[in-house]
Amino acid sequence: MAKAPADRAIEAGRYAYEGLERAIHEKARLGIMTSLMTRPEGLSFTELKELCDLTDGNLNRHLDVLSEAGLVDVRKDQGRERRSRTVVKVTAQGRTRFLEYVNQLERVVADAAEASRTAAGRLSTT
Amino acid sequence: MAKAPADRAIEAGRYAYEGLERAIHEKARLGIMTSLMTRPEGLSFTELKELCDLTDGNLNRHLDVLSEAGLVDVRKDQGRERRSRTVVKVTAQGRTRFLEYVNQLERVVADAAEASRTAAGRLSTT
Repeated sequence: MAKAPADRAIEAGRYAYEGLERAIHEKARLGIMTSLMTRPEGLSFTELKELCDLTDGNLNRHLDVLSEAGLVDVRKDQGRERRSRTVVKVTAQGRTRFLEYVNQLERVVADAAEASRTAAGRLSTT
Repeated sequence: MAKAPADRAIEAGRYAYEGLERAIHEKARLGIMTSLMTRPEGLSFTELKELCDLTDGNLNRHLDVLSEAGLVDVRKDQGRERRSRTVVKVTAQGRTRFLEYVNQLERVVADAAEASRTAAGRLSTT
């Protein structure tokens, strides 16, 4: 026996957002990846710390996650006079995966905007 | 002595995204909040599980976080014949904070889109 259609059908997994890669989605890492995308030539550890407002410890921890996921490349540039400088760059794979992530994020924003309109509309009619 | 301006100035905290509230930003909770915003009258535990593709344990854990943050209201509706049904609704405060979160998310998407264009532009000139 067929069931009567509900007011709104429940579409399984409609809001599961599988494409939001966890390694990128975390708030601090999202900032790190976005700033690195603006500088394909790389950013120094100090610049990244400043741009993303992170402590040394936090930045190191998040760079470990990004690096293990193959999203960034962390390299010590041996400067003259024994000074070294850590330079972080997004990898080619990181660039591709970031673009996929952003596509999914745009879908979330569209869903959220639609949801907000629904909420406002239904509240005003009750 | 004034320093020469860099190629691009480093703007402190530019990519810190302070407004991305952690209670909402986590991927599963973002799905839960978005689906609840589309149904101001509430969703049952079973419907939420389905829409967000979560296990009972995971959904319970995330609802605890959202509820403790004041974003959702979880209530057992005592039905007739001893059957009870858990209904989850977004709170008024939750609605406001979700809208603020989405505003910030739109800024992230705009930054990311700009960053992607920069990356593509710079790569094509090297």
